[in-house]
Amino acid sequence: MTEIYFDNAATSRPFDEVCGKMLQVMTESYGNPAAQNKMGLDAERIIKEAKETLAGFLSASPDEIFFTSGGTEGNNMALLGGAYAMQKRGKHIISSPAEHPAVLRPLEKLAEEGFEVEYLPVNEKGEVSLEALENAVREDTILVSLMTVNNETGTITDIEEAGRIIKEKNPNTLFHTDAVQGFGKLKINAKKAKADFITASAHKFHGPKGLGFIYIKNTSQMRPILLGGGQQKGVRPGTENPAGAAAMAEAARLCYKDFDAKTERIFNIKKTLWEYISENIPDTIINGCDLEKASPYVLNVSFLGVRSNVLLNAVGAKGLFASAGSACNSKKKVESHVLNAMGLDHKRTDSALRFSFSSLNTAEEAVKAGEILKEQVEFLRKYAVR
Amino acid sequence: MTEIYFDNAATSRPFDEVCGKMLQVMTESYGNPAAQNKMGLDAERIIKEAKETLAGFLSASPDEIFFTSGGTEGNNMALLGGAYAMQKRGKHIISSPAEHPAVLRPLEKLAEEGFEVEYLPVNEKGEVSLEALENAVREDTILVSLMTVNNETGTITDIEEAGRIIKEKNPNTLFHTDAVQGFGKLKINAKKAKADFITASAHKFHGPKGLGFIYIKNTSQMRPILLGGGQQKGVRPGTENPAGAAAMAEAARLCYKDFDAKTERIFNIKKTLWEYISENIPDTIINGCDLEKASPYVLNVSFLGVRSNVLLNAVGAKGLFASAGSACNSKKKVESHVLNAMGLDHKRTDSALRFSFSSLNTAEEAVKAGEILKEQVEFLRKYAVR
Repeated sequence: MTEIYFDNAATSRPFDEVCGKMLQVMTESYGNPAAQNKMGLDAERIIKEAKETLAGFLSASPDEIFFTSGGTEGNNMALLGGAYAMQKRGKHIISSPAEHPAVLRPLEKLAEEGFEVEYLPVNEKGEVSLEALENAVREDTILVSLMTVNNETGTITDIEEAGRIIKEKNPNTLFHTDAVQGFGKLKINAKKAKADFITASAHKFHGPKGLGFIYIKNTSQMRPILLGGGQQKGVRPGTENPAGAAAMAEAARLCYKDFDAKTERIFNIKKTLWEYISENIPDTIINGCDLEKASPYVLNVSFLGVRSNVLLNAVGAKGLFASAGSACNSKKKVESHVLNAMGLDHKRTDSALRFSFSSLNTAEEAVKAGEILKEQVEFLRKYAVR
Repeated sequence: MTEIYFDNAATSRPFDEVCGKMLQVMTESYGNPAAQNKMGLDAERIIKEAKETLAGFLSASPDEIFFTSGGTEGNNMALLGGAYAMQKRGKHIISSPAEHPAVLRPLEKLAEEGFEVEYLPVNEKGEVSLEALENAVREDTILVSLMTVNNETGTITDIEEAGRIIKEKNPNTLFHTDAVQGFGKLKINAKKAKADFITASAHKFHGPKGLGFIYIKNTSQMRPILLGGGQQKGVRPGTENPAGAAAMAEAARLCYKDFDAKTERIFNIKKTLWEYISENIPDTIINGCDLEKASPYVLNVSFLGVRSNVLLNAVGAKGLFASAGSACNSKKKVESHVLNAMGLDHKRTDSALRFSFSSLNTAEEAVKAGEILKEQVEFLRKYAVR
């Protein structure tokens, strides 16, 4: 059976070159970057080169890049670390209800601790109004957190415009963007976005799992979450991982290689799938922005009348891997907080599937996926118990 | 030039089988363990098997194992997480001044926040008195943190005896042991040690860097440090890393294979080096416990009259990699907090080198290392500016 992996926003297959780089550094340069011997210096050089590569793709400086264990840790560092460092200036924080749980949960903790967290509403396409953002930023606003690309719908925030608005209203307000679904897929310029924190995760752009990085403009504007040895200037202690860092940098390099052509090719996969669906399967609707406006990497579609998880399992059995807009378990049903925040009705939230693409996919796979979806949706609409 | 890597306590070379396992899982099973598709189930199975393997070596249950980004995160989770969860019961915490910075720094933070942190003194061999421990545990003692093996001297804490004493005095006191230099090198039994938290780090036992695990007996007795998705029961959110987990489990399996013979072989390397040094280089002295009593993996020796870093560089140039008991930089001199806590005089702390071994070393290397040390110590004692 052919397998079609359209779940790249959940995690992506490491590029062969990434695996090769990982293996090479693990084998040849296993020293501790903090050690004073030749092995340590070699490891330190690899770390330095990885930071240079990653910084380059953000138009940032290598000393603004800090390695983390992934997107969750990066978001926690920015939000908890930023809020605690800035709390003397104010307690007001702005975000949106469509953010990832690794943003929402730290914000809930901050709210419990007395911070005032304001969630700007999103419209039916998942967009935050930048006018509302402008109105919300106050004298005592210490932090704004808005994601670059939404993981469920692919809706893009114009982070350069958001950054400009925030800093014009209050230059002391820190701006964090969770770019876990953006880095490696969109061009991101930390300076133009006037960002103070940018979070990325390696396994979302064909790097290894368990690893990411955070861009921090000014380390005095955050408090470390983890405490220990002096590695990474004490901002993020713990023995550094040269193999992971080199592999992540290699993944970024490959993602940004031939970027425009690649982006067009991936958009064509998404377009092909949506055209097949919309032309062949009635009662289907895109959730999020229009085809061209959203990230080319994500397509979220409701197949009205068919439960997400039932369809997910049905197409999975045919070799098409995607994910449900809403995750269920046997005991209770949890709908997508993103689609709910967009105000979509139950019919849509209950029947949504997310397809997410990568440069390892093809337009042929999109056609095949469309055929599998058509067959399964028709079958389920006829026979499934509602 | 032959290279002799005697810096295994800083980091160890990943076993070939570990690299192979890493590569295999990265290539074949790159799904997200949280995903509902076949790829996800495959990844989840790998995670489960890794937990079973690791739990087995602690005589623990797989659901007591949680993956972390390494020893630093594990120690932070146990100390900060444990203290915050238990603070209603009391504020008293017991530890020792010879612990790793990833224990000491979180304890300093807790002290700043109003916890009462009591550091039991260590004797001239680096040992904490278990009698002093018994006297120190009080009604309001919520947490004790004592390392299994000291990273600088190899001094071993009898954690089973410590655990028994703590729990007899106060069954509600949580017991954490930083086993970063113990797991894979000593037999550790979580139940016999009555431990609530045990921290381990993969790269210290020939696993990959950026990865470790923590044993947690009861997750209701700790608060997560990182917040996000529900992975690992919410105790440690973030996409799990099947390749890393499988590679770490493979490393543990190989370390505990033919354990007694291996331990004897490694002790022989240490013994060979020390015998060469003591017989051929005058004015040398072991820091820490006697040869047989300490961990076979670590030998800390002072070469009186020769500065640690000068000797480290001199032997490094001859291909012998070790580390300094005290770390220096050009601006200020920082002596080992461990050797200082042991009350050693400046002559000893200033001339200490740590040699740390692994199963990839040989007794022949120990002899060669001894020869290099003899030559360099003689040269430096004659010519180096004091």
